Amino acid sequence: MATNQQVSVAVVGCGYWGPNLMRNFAGHPRSQLSWLIDVDPARLHPWAARYPLARTTTDLAEALADPQLHAAVIATPVSTHFPLARQCLSAGKHVLVEKPMSQSPAECRQLIRLAKQKHLTLMVDHTFLYTGAVRKIKQLIEDGELGKIYYFDSVRVNLGLFQHDVNVIWDLAPHDLSIMDYVLRKRPTHVAAHGACHVPGSHIENIAYLALKFADDTIAHFHVNWLAPAKIRRIIIGGSKKMLVYDELSPDEKIKIYDKGLVIKDANDSHRWLAEYRIGDLYVPNVDTTEALAREINHFVDCILRRQRPESDGEAGLRVVRILTAAQTSLARNGEFVAI
Amino acid sequence: MATNQQVSVAVVGCGYWGPNLMRNFAGHPRSQLSWLIDVDPARLHPWAARYPLARTTTDLAEALADPQLHAAVIATPVSTHFPLARQCLSAGKHVLVEKPMSQSPAECRQLIRLAKQKHLTLMVDHTFLYTGAVRKIKQLIEDGELGKIYYFDSVRVNLGLFQHDVNVIWDLAPHDLSIMDYVLRKRPTHVAAHGACHVPGSHIENIAYLALKFADDTIAHFHVNWLAPAKIRRIIIGGSKKMLVYDELSPDEKIKIYDKGLVIKDANDSHRWLAEYRIGDLYVPNVDTTEALAREINHFVDCILRRQRPESDGEAGLRVVRILTAAQTSLARNGEFVAI
Amino acid sequence: MATNQQVSVAVVGCGYWGPNLMRNFAGHPRSQLSWLIDVDPARLHPWAARYPLARTTTDLAEALADPQLHAAVIATPVSTHFPLARQCLSAGKHVLVEKPMSQSPAECRQLIRLAKQKHLTLMVDHTFLYTGAVRKIKQLIEDGELGKIYYFDSVRVNLGLFQHDVNVIWDLAPHDLSIMDYVLRKRPTHVAAHGACHVPGSHIENIAYLALKFADDTIAHFHVNWLAPAKIRRIIIGGSKKMLVYDELSPDEKIKIYDKGLVIKDANDSHRWLAEYRIGDLYVPNVDTTEALAREINHFVDCILRRQRPESDGEAGLRVVRILTAAQTSLARNGEFVAI
Amino acid sequence: MATNQQVSVAVVGCGYWGPNLMRNFAGHPRSQLSWLIDVDPARLHPWAARYPLARTTTDLAEALADPQLHAAVIATPVSTHFPLARQCLSAGKHVLVEKPMSQSPAECRQLIRLAKQKHLTLMVDHTFLYTGAVRKIKQLIEDGELGKIYYFDSVRVNLGLFQHDVNVIWDLAPHDLSIMDYVLRKRPTHVAAHGACHVPGSHIENIAYLALKFADDTIAHFHVNWLAPAKIRRIIIGGSKKMLVYDELSPDEKIKIYDKGLVIKDANDSHRWLAEYRIGDLYVPNVDTTEALAREINHFVDCILRRQRPESDGEAGLRVVRILTAAQTSLARNGEFVAI
Repeated sequence: MATNQQVSVAVVGCGYWGPNLMRNFAGHPRSQLSWLIDVDPARLHPWAARYPLARTTTDLAEALADPQLHAAVIATPVSTHFPLARQCLSAGKHVLVEKPMSQSPAECRQLIRLAKQKHLTLMVDHTFLYTGAVRKIKQLIEDGELGKIYYFDSVRVNLGLFQHDVNVIWDLAPHDLSIMDYVLRKRPTHVAAHGACHVPGSHIENIAYLALKFADDTIAHFHVNWLAPAKIRRIIIGGSKKMLVYDELSPDEKIKIYDKGLVIKDANDSHRWLAEYRIGDLYVPNVDTTEALAREINHFVDCILRRQRPESDGEAGLRVVRILTAAQTSLARNGEFVAI
Repeated sequence: MATNQQVSVAVVGCGYWGPNLMRNFAGHPRSQLSWLIDVDPARLHPWAARYPLARTTTDLAEALADPQLHAAVIATPVSTHFPLARQCLSAGKHVLVEKPMSQSPAECRQLIRLAKQKHLTLMVDHTFLYTGAVRKIKQLIEDGELGKIYYFDSVRVNLGLFQHDVNVIWDLAPHDLSIMDYVLRKRPTHVAAHGACHVPGSHIENIAYLALKFADDTIAHFHVNWLAPAKIRRIIIGGSKKMLVYDELSPDEKIKIYDKGLVIKDANDSHRWLAEYRIGDLYVPNVDTTEALAREINHFVDCILRRQRPESDGEAGLRVVRILTAAQTSLARNGEFVAI
Repeated sequence: MATNQQVSVAVVGCGYWGPNLMRNFAGHPRSQLSWLIDVDPARLHPWAARYPLARTTTDLAEALADPQLHAAVIATPVSTHFPLARQCLSAGKHVLVEKPMSQSPAECRQLIRLAKQKHLTLMVDHTFLYTGAVRKIKQLIEDGELGKIYYFDSVRVNLGLFQHDVNVIWDLAPHDLSIMDYVLRKRPTHVAAHGACHVPGSHIENIAYLALKFADDTIAHFHVNWLAPAKIRRIIIGGSKKMLVYDELSPDEKIKIYDKGLVIKDANDSHRWLAEYRIGDLYVPNVDTTEALAREINHFVDCILRRQRPESDGEAGLRVVRILTAAQTSLARNGEFVAI
Repeated sequence: MATNQQVSVAVVGCGYWGPNLMRNFAGHPRSQLSWLIDVDPARLHPWAARYPLARTTTDLAEALADPQLHAAVIATPVSTHFPLARQCLSAGKHVLVEKPMSQSPAECRQLIRLAKQKHLTLMVDHTFLYTGAVRKIKQLIEDGELGKIYYFDSVRVNLGLFQHDVNVIWDLAPHDLSIMDYVLRKRPTHVAAHGACHVPGSHIENIAYLALKFADDTIAHFHVNWLAPAKIRRIIIGGSKKMLVYDELSPDEKIKIYDKGLVIKDANDSHRWLAEYRIGDLYVPNVDTTEALAREINHFVDCILRRQRPESDGEAGLRVVRILTAAQTSLARNGEFVAI
C-alpha cells in the first residue's frame, strides 16, 4: 500500500472491547472503519446505527471477500482467535488480534508463519505496552536507572467478570505478562502456578498465583483474582540501584521511583556481610497520558503502511501464550515448576 | 501463686524488642521487672540505669537461681530460643518466648512437654493476636459475617532489616501465619514456597512467596519481602458472604468489610452457571486501640496467676513452626508442596 | 406535548461542555438532537460529521425558526447566558442553561418570569445534583442521620483552566453552592469573600475563599483555586449526630459517614460543661453510579413532557447567582459580610 | 555557664505535654531533669516515681530558690504562661514556654525585655520549626525553588480536645502560623477571622477560618477545626515556579514538590494574556526524621550554653501572638480585616 493510502478495517466481534476499537479506527485519519462483523445480529444493530458508513454482516467470509478491505481486528472469545485470525490472514488481510493471541504455542506459531509467508502484519493487542507509564518503565530499565533487576511482583485483583471459557490466569495474567515481557530484557525459564476455584460446579480458577524463574536469581510473581473486594493493580520492580512501584489506578502518580536500596559491605564472606540501606528521594515522573489504544491503533496502521514490525508482534504474543500454557500445565501438576 | 501476688519477671535479651517488654512489665500493676539479662554487658548498661530496681547479669543461671523469680521472657535470636526456654522451664520458671517459638517442631514439642510436666505457663509472643483489629477479625469470622472462607492473602513487605541467622520467611511470615492460625478454624495441610536471595555471597532468601492448601478449596498465600521500596502490610480475606481487607498501617481504617460477593445462578451445571455480583455498602468497624503488647503481657500475667491456658500457647507456636519448617523443605525441593 | 412524543433539542455552543450534551441527547430514547449551533463554523464542523442527522447553523435565530424544535440547551460563555436564554424562551422553546444561570439576580428573575408566562421549562445545569453521591447526602440529611447541621466545608482546587470572563468564584463555586443549596434546608444570609489574583496584568481572582453565615450558628466555607498543584474536591459536613466527608474523586469511597461526635455534659453552665467524644464505626454507602448528565437530561425531558418542575429550576439558579453576586460585592468591599 | 556544663532544668506543668519534655530532658546528655512542678500533687506523683532523681514541688518558688537550677520549661494553660514565665525570668532562670507564648503582645514584649535585661534565653515551643519537613520547606523557599510565593493554605482539623480557656484559633493556629512565620520571609499585614461555636452554652469557637493579607498579592488562609470527623493536617504553598504540599500525617511522603505552574503569554494586556500550564515531574524529598522535640531541646540547651539566639525566640512568639490577637478582634468585629 502507498503510505498515504487509507487502511480499510473490519472489526470482528462487537462485544465488550469491540466498540473501543471501532471508535479509534473511525477517528483515525489514515484508517477507515469499513466492516462490523458479529455472529449475533442483535450485537451488530446499535453499532450499525452509530457508524452508518460501515457495512455489517454476520458472515466473516463476506467481508473478507471485499477486495478493498485491508485489515481485520479480532475481538472475539479466546477460543475463536486462532481460526478467525487464520481465516483473515489466508484471505490476505492484516490482523490485530486480542490477547491472549490464541490457546496454544502451536497455534501462535502457525499464525506467525502464515503472516510471514503472505507478508502481512500480525499484531497482538497487548494494550498496556502502549501506555505512557509502561513505556516510561521500559525506558528507565533500559537506561539502567534501576540497575540489575531482582524481582517483578504483580497484583491484579478486583471483583471481576467471571469468564466461562478461560480461567483467571488466561483472562488477567496476559496484561502483566506482556508488560514484563516488554520491559525486561531477560526471559523466564520456568513457571509454577497455584489456584483455586470457588464457584460450585465450575472448574475454572477464579484466584491464582504464578511464580516465574529465570536463568539468574531474578524472580517474578503474579497474583490474579476475580473475587477481590477492592481493585488493586500494582507492579513492584526491585533493582540493585533503585526500585519502582507502578500503580495503574493512580490518576497522577502512576510510577513512583524510589532511590532506595541495599548496600552490601564485604559480601565475599556470607558470614560477615553487612546489609545496609540507602534511602534517598522519591520521584514521580510525569507520564504521557495519550490513550493507549489510540497509540496502538496508530502503530498498527503505521506497521501496515510502512511494512514495520509491530512492538507487540506475533512473537510477543507467542511468548505470553507459552507462559500461560506452562502455567496451566503446572496447575494440573500440583504446582510444580514447568519449563516454558 | 496467689492471684493477688506480684509476678517477678526476668527479661532475657536487651536488643531490639527487649526494651518494649521491659517498659510493659515495669508498668504493669501485677508484675515486677526483677532481672535484665544479656550476654553483652554493653547492651545491659543503659537499661540498668533506666530500671534501677532490676538486677542485671550476663549469666542466665544467676537469675534463675533467684527463688523469687517467677517468669522469664526470652527475646533473643531464634537459634537460642529452644536452649534458653528449656533452661528456664527446667528451673521452674514460666516462659514467654519470642516468635518463632523455635527452629523445629521437635524442639517445640519438647518445650510443651516440659511445661506440662512442671505445670508452668508456656506462651509464645504472637503479638498480633492481641491487637484490637485481629481480635475483631476473628470475631467477625466466628460470627459467620464472612460466610465460608475462600482465601487468605497476605502481603508483608518493606525495606527490612536483613537477618543473618534466618531468612525472610522465618523473620516475617510468623506474624501472618499466627494471625491466620488464630482467625481461621481450619488448618492448612500443605505448603509450597518460592524465594530468591539477592545478597551476593549470602544464601538467605530476602523475598519469598508461600502458597498453602487446605483439605477443602481454601487457599492461603503469603508474600514476605525485605527488599521492597514501600511498606505494605495487608491481608485480604475472601468469604462467600463478605470480604475484608486488613491494612495494618492505616491509622483509622484498619479493617474494611465489603458487603460484596458472588451470586451463583444454577451452579449445578458448570456449563450454564452464571456468576453475578452483589455490591453493597462498605463498613469500617471502630477497633480497640489498646497497645497489643500491653494486652498480651497482662494476659501472660493472668495465665500465670489464674493457671489459664494462653491464647498463644505452645501448641500455637508449634503449628506456626510446622508451617515454617515445611516451607523451608519446599524451598529446598524446588517449590513442591510439602505436607505440614 | 404528548408524553410519548420525542423532544427535539438544539445544542447552543459546541465548546468544552457541548459535546457531552450532544452525546447524551443523541443517545436518549425520547429526545432527538436536531440542531448544533455555534458562532464559530470551525467548532461546528467536527460535530456535524459525528451527528449527521442534526442540522447546523451559526445563527441561533435560524434554528429557533424551526417549528419542530422544542428545546434549546445553552452551553456558551457566562456573559451570553442571559441574552441567549431570553431569545430561546421568547421563541417558545424550553431551556436548559449552563451554570451559573446568568450574571445577575435581575437577569435570573427576568428569565424565570418569561418562562412562567410562556409555560416553558427553565432548568439550570447544576450537574452535581444528579450524581448518586449528592442525592445520597441529601437523603441522609433529610432522614436526620447527621442531626443538626453545624458546618459545610468545601474545597475545590486543582490546576484549572484560567477563564477570561469570570473569576474562580464564578467558575468553580457554583458546583459547591448548588450542592449546598440542594442538600441543606436552610439558606445562608450573608457572605464574605477573600481572594487574590496572581496573573500579572489580570484582575481576575484565581484563588478565593467564601465564608457564609446563616440565621443560626451554622457556618459554610468554600475554597476555590485554579492554581493548586493537586486536585482536591472534598466536602465535609459536620452534624450534631454524625459527620460525613464527600470525596468526589474517590472511585469507590465517595461518601464516608462517621459515627463520631460530641457529647456535652451539663452544657447549661459554660464554665462547667464537658465535651466528650463518641467514636463509632465508619460506613461507606454504595452509591448509584449512573452518569449524572444522563440522569439530568432524562429529568429535563421528563419535565418538558410531564410539565414537571425541575429539581434545578430557575429559582435554584437564582439562589446560587445571588450568593455569587454578593460574594463579588464582598471582594470589592475588602471582605466584609454582604447580605445575600 | 561553661559550654561543657550540664543545664539543670525544671518542668513546670505535668499535664498532657509535660511528660514529653521530661523524657527528652532526662535523656539529653547535657541537661539534667532536676525539678517537676505542678499545683496538683496527684499529677506529680507518677512522674516522681518515673524520675527518682528529680525533686518535686507544688510551689514554683521553692524550685526557683534552687541556685543550681538554670532553666524552667513552662507547659501550663495559656493564661498562666505570662505570670509563670515572668516569675522564672525574674528569678534568673532561662525559659522555654509553650505556644502560644502568652495572651497578648504586651505580655510578650514584657517577657522579651525582661530576658534581654537579665541576659537570659527566652524560647517559645514552636515545635514544628524543628521537624525535618518544615526545615526542608524553609530551605526550598530560601533557595528560590518555588519562585515567588503566591499563597499559603493550611488545614488543621480533627476531632480535637475542646479547651475551656481558649478557642480553636488559639489552640491550633499557632502551629501553622509559626510554620508560616518560619518559612516565609514576608510578614502578613492584616487578618480576617470567621468562626462558629457549636457547644451549647459555650462561647468558645470550635471551628474557624483565618484569611491573611500581605503588602503584596500574597494570600494566606487557615482552617482550624476541633469537630472534624477525619484528621487533616495539610499545607499547600503555591509559587510562581513550583508548588508544594506538606502532609504532616503522611508517614513517608510528607513533602510533595510539584514542578507545575502557570506560563503567562503576553501578560501586559489583561485582555489578551494567555495562561498555560507547565506540568513536570513530582518529587518527594527524603526528610530527616529526628524527633522534633529532641532537636528543639538540644537547641534550647545549646542556646543557653553558647548564648545563641533561639530560632523560635521571643520575637517569633510575639509575631504569632500578634496575629492571634488581631484575629480575635476580627471575630468580634464580624470578620473585618484587622491590622496585625
